[in-house]
Amino acid sequence: MHLIHRLPMLQWARGYGGAVLSADLLAAVIVTIMLIPQSLAYAMLANLPPEVGLYASILPLVAYAVFGTSRVLAVGPVAVVSLMTASAIGPVVQAGLADALTAAVALALLSGAMLVAAGIFRLGFLANFLSHPVMSGFITASGILIAAGQIRHLLGVGGGGSTLPEILPALFAGLPRTNPWTLAIGAGSLAFLYAARRWGRHGLVRAGLPGWLADMLARAAPILAIAAAIALAKALDLGGRGVALVGAIPQGLPGLSLPIPSLELLAALAPAALLISVVGFVESVSVGQTLAARRRERIAPDQELIGLGAANIAAGLGGGYPVTGGFARSVVNYDAGAQTPAAGVFTAIGIALAALFLTPLLADLPQAVLAATIILAVLSLVDFRAIRRVLDYSPRDFLAMAATILVTLLVGVEPGISAGVLLSLVMQLYRSSRPHSAVVGQVPGTEHFRNVDRHRVLVWPEILSLRVDESLYFANSRFLEDRIAALVADRPRLRHVVLMCPAVNDIDASALESLEEINRRLAEGGIRLHLSEVKGPVMDRLRRSDFLRHLSGQVFLSQHEAVCRLRRDLGPDASPAQETGLACYGDAARLLRGG
Amino acid sequence: MHLIHRLPMLQWARGYGGAVLSADLLAAVIVTIMLIPQSLAYAMLANLPPEVGLYASILPLVAYAVFGTSRVLAVGPVAVVSLMTASAIGPVVQAGLADALTAAVALALLSGAMLVAAGIFRLGFLANFLSHPVMSGFITASGILIAAGQIRHLLGVGGGGSTLPEILPALFAGLPRTNPWTLAIGAGSLAFLYAARRWGRHGLVRAGLPGWLADMLARAAPILAIAAAIALAKALDLGGRGVALVGAIPQGLPGLSLPIPSLELLAALAPAALLISVVGFVESVSVGQTLAARRRERIAPDQELIGLGAANIAAGLGGGYPVTGGFARSVVNYDAGAQTPAAGVFTAIGIALAALFLTPLLADLPQAVLAATIILAVLSLVDFRAIRRVLDYSPRDFLAMAATILVTLLVGVEPGISAGVLLSLVMQLYRSSRPHSAVVGQVPGTEHFRNVDRHRVLVWPEILSLRVDESLYFANSRFLEDRIAALVADRPRLRHVVLMCPAVNDIDASALESLEEINRRLAEGGIRLHLSEVKGPVMDRLRRSDFLRHLSGQVFLSQHEAVCRLRRDLGPDASPAQETGLACYGDAARLLRGG
Repeated sequence: MHLIHRLPMLQWARGYGGAVLSADLLAAVIVTIMLIPQSLAYAMLANLPPEVGLYASILPLVAYAVFGTSRVLAVGPVAVVSLMTASAIGPVVQAGLADALTAAVALALLSGAMLVAAGIFRLGFLANFLSHPVMSGFITASGILIAAGQIRHLLGVGGGGSTLPEILPALFAGLPRTNPWTLAIGAGSLAFLYAARRWGRHGLVRAGLPGWLADMLARAAPILAIAAAIALAKALDLGGRGVALVGAIPQGLPGLSLPIPSLELLAALAPAALLISVVGFVESVSVGQTLAARRRERIAPDQELIGLGAANIAAGLGGGYPVTGGFARSVVNYDAGAQTPAAGVFTAIGIALAALFLTPLLADLPQAVLAATIILAVLSLVDFRAIRRVLDYSPRDFLAMAATILVTLLVGVEPGISAGVLLSLVMQLYRSSRPHSAVVGQVPGTEHFRNVDRHRVLVWPEILSLRVDESLYFANSRFLEDRIAALVADRPRLRHVVLMCPAVNDIDASALESLEEINRRLAEGGIRLHLSEVKGPVMDRLRRSDFLRHLSGQVFLSQHEAVCRLRRDLGPDASPAQETGLACYGDAARLLRGG
Repeated sequence: MHLIHRLPMLQWARGYGGAVLSADLLAAVIVTIMLIPQSLAYAMLANLPPEVGLYASILPLVAYAVFGTSRVLAVGPVAVVSLMTASAIGPVVQAGLADALTAAVALALLSGAMLVAAGIFRLGFLANFLSHPVMSGFITASGILIAAGQIRHLLGVGGGGSTLPEILPALFAGLPRTNPWTLAIGAGSLAFLYAARRWGRHGLVRAGLPGWLADMLARAAPILAIAAAIALAKALDLGGRGVALVGAIPQGLPGLSLPIPSLELLAALAPAALLISVVGFVESVSVGQTLAARRRERIAPDQELIGLGAANIAAGLGGGYPVTGGFARSVVNYDAGAQTPAAGVFTAIGIALAALFLTPLLADLPQAVLAATIILAVLSLVDFRAIRRVLDYSPRDFLAMAATILVTLLVGVEPGISAGVLLSLVMQLYRSSRPHSAVVGQVPGTEHFRNVDRHRVLVWPEILSLRVDESLYFANSRFLEDRIAALVADRPRLRHVVLMCPAVNDIDASALESLEEINRRLAEGGIRLHLSEVKGPVMDRLRRSDFLRHLSGQVFLSQHEAVCRLRRDLGPDASPAQETGLACYGDAARLLRGG
């Protein structure tokens, strides 16, 4: 692999400057304004001090700019991964293995190392096993969990928990202790942020502002809410009235450090790190691919693993926690006109400046404002229409999705996503252990053979044409033995069985044993076994075995050729063709529609 | 389900008698003679007292006769399952959870319950995931382990161990302490048994005996060896010379009892019970199917689960240990002319009589004779030619087989078979995550479309025909997106992409998202997406989604129709057909051979 593939930065860094530089700078300003409140809020969601969110938005952006392949992906703390981080470090802290920050840093390093290793060994394909419905169900359930978990901050009551059965009773028990000041600040921020998102840009444009300014002001709404809340908190001494404030944040930047976590800590965090890596990678790649397609660019998934892994290692080195590519911020970056990953580097500088100079101002920020930011951000993750769409299309996919959602809500994020992935795998294995096959006949006037149960076709009593619709391997080959035995038992005049193999890409050693068994059993009953439409690679491999020597029949190029030759060989005694009757099906129309 | 399917006995018990009765009786005598020494030996292999082997050969045969569907399968203790039993109860006994016998009984009950449950819930398909090469490798490795483990009994030295790294050093360390009397008895029995198996029947026939008598005498060789060894041991006082003897065996039959194992014991035994159930079932069904096919009978795999489960529960109730259908004894039963499972009941009576009256005679039996019986029996399990055949045919299957063999020999039986099953599953998932697809063109003069890389076919620059050779699902749909993006990038004159779907049995929700994405991206580039040869059930389901409304192109019945219509629509500007050149391939010959 060439250096330019390993360091995608080399592609855009040469000749950088001018118009591209200004575009990137403008995008960086907008994204920085958006990221500051989000970083603070997501750190709170991960049960970490707010400054950790800022730290996680500095070095990772630089690392991704160097190693990542998407030109506009913005990495940093995101809601779902923050929730998974909270769920991962909770037990570790409780068991006394490490404090929350040490555990978060170890989690980022571990997840980064896994991603880089997966990139080097080209294991990106493993992410495909997280199916779309499972991922979508998991994100919806996470959004619900996050929103439910933040309500207590809006009300100013205690409680906690990481699943609905833990969160809800604590919340109801706390209701009577609602702090009116907190609720006022929280509900006010929520209403303001919602209004700004829904009508802000439009309203400002109608008020006569130019589009770009309206856009930037609308995106600054969370910053405005924070500034206003801080001013209010100071003016009304909200801290003294029982409103939970963020409190003192250490000023400045963390030093670079490489903490060596204990093996025990790593072992405890490994399963969660794996799930965070997979979920983060899938989310990041899907955002990256969507945006790349808009500009006819492409991203390289295996290199993305390295980019994202580098970002996580950088997060760990810089005192942050696991990061990934976020959808909302990447879209903002794209819309704001970012041309190269340099925009990410400028954003990192912006966040670093904030960490240096703004943190003293944040001590008086009510936590309720951050909770409102989170709730508004995650509500867009909840997608009930997607659930409905999957239910209509595929009950099996819906089952995996529903299991993911329920287990995530009721048991937790790690069991939830694991249950979804395992259930989809088991259902897939079950399905492929029952290979689809169909008895076919000739569509009159063509060389085309179709299912006798679905089409009006010609068949001959001496010849059974069975189309095998799947590669044959250990899990499904015995099923084929059973199917053929049953079909033969029903057909007393049968002389030839032709297995039509256009869909057979592979015949493994177990399936070869089954075919030899089928051939032997048919031969004992005076029936010859033939193959047709066998693919080249399969044929090459069959030639390396004894099978073709034992085969009682022949291998034909096409099913049409097989039937023509076998009928000629049967001679004058052959039965005439029989037409299968399926008038009720309206089959001509059906054929045209591709049925 | 009808009672006759649940109690297959009802099929043969009505009108039983006469010629069938005599045939079954004769077969029972021969099998009994064979089973007595084997039962004692396999119990020793399982680290259990010898009489437990006899007990395991009584009630299970009766239970299988009632519930099993094979007419000639003979169940009882077998070598591989005995080895697995030893490996399962060893740790439990060491941990002090139970004594060996209690653990063995619990293992039989647990395995029986699992099998019956699997039969009721029709989970027999799960056994398909134990692929042929993995099973064959496991049996070969077990045979080697068993033989290696018995050598110490031939030498009369101590030692133990359940893996080669444990067995071999202990064996070499013990060599200097070899007991010459034991070695003489052991090597003598081995030579005699080998000669009797190899030349016995043939020699007796040549000496003028009728075939049936020669056969029975040859099969009685182990019994003769045992009788001679007992006589020798008594005459020469071998016990006093340091030869290990079987020792006193309790006379009589065990009472029926249903010991209730503790939950802790069940939990410790559960993984081993599962593996024993799967291995036992696969072995049993393959023996049963092979013999049934010879007489054009069929066995019902799901009912076999119940038959085998009942046999194991009976083994547990009657003080035995896990059993399954054995190959050698079933073949003997078949060859001896057994007609119905009643032969099994008569065999059980024979073994019960032996347990009642013969056990006092066995106290002086040298263990070395039993070891010789075991070694000779398991050497037929070791099949190096099968390894070679799999290596030639399929490197991937060979990898799974080699892993099974190595892990079994070096780590143990449970890790060995688990490693084989997991590795085959992972490789299968990896393979199916890269769906086979091929750009196809028309074979001149036919309506047939084949791979452009393998055949001389006609293609048109404006039309890309891509045959998709696998069902599309979450693990492979993104791969198709990548493939199409790459193909389109190479073809500037492209106007139509036709996905030919004869092998697509299913499109799940993830794949549907991918297809919508492909359709959208192609449309943005001015290219229309069409489908052809879509199967009925897939089409039915696509109609339940929005996809067909968004599809930029059409759905055609056949690829031939698609190309004809699209070329007509392209009008007079359409490019002429181009013939792909593959003269070097000798493709006419290749086509005839089905390549």
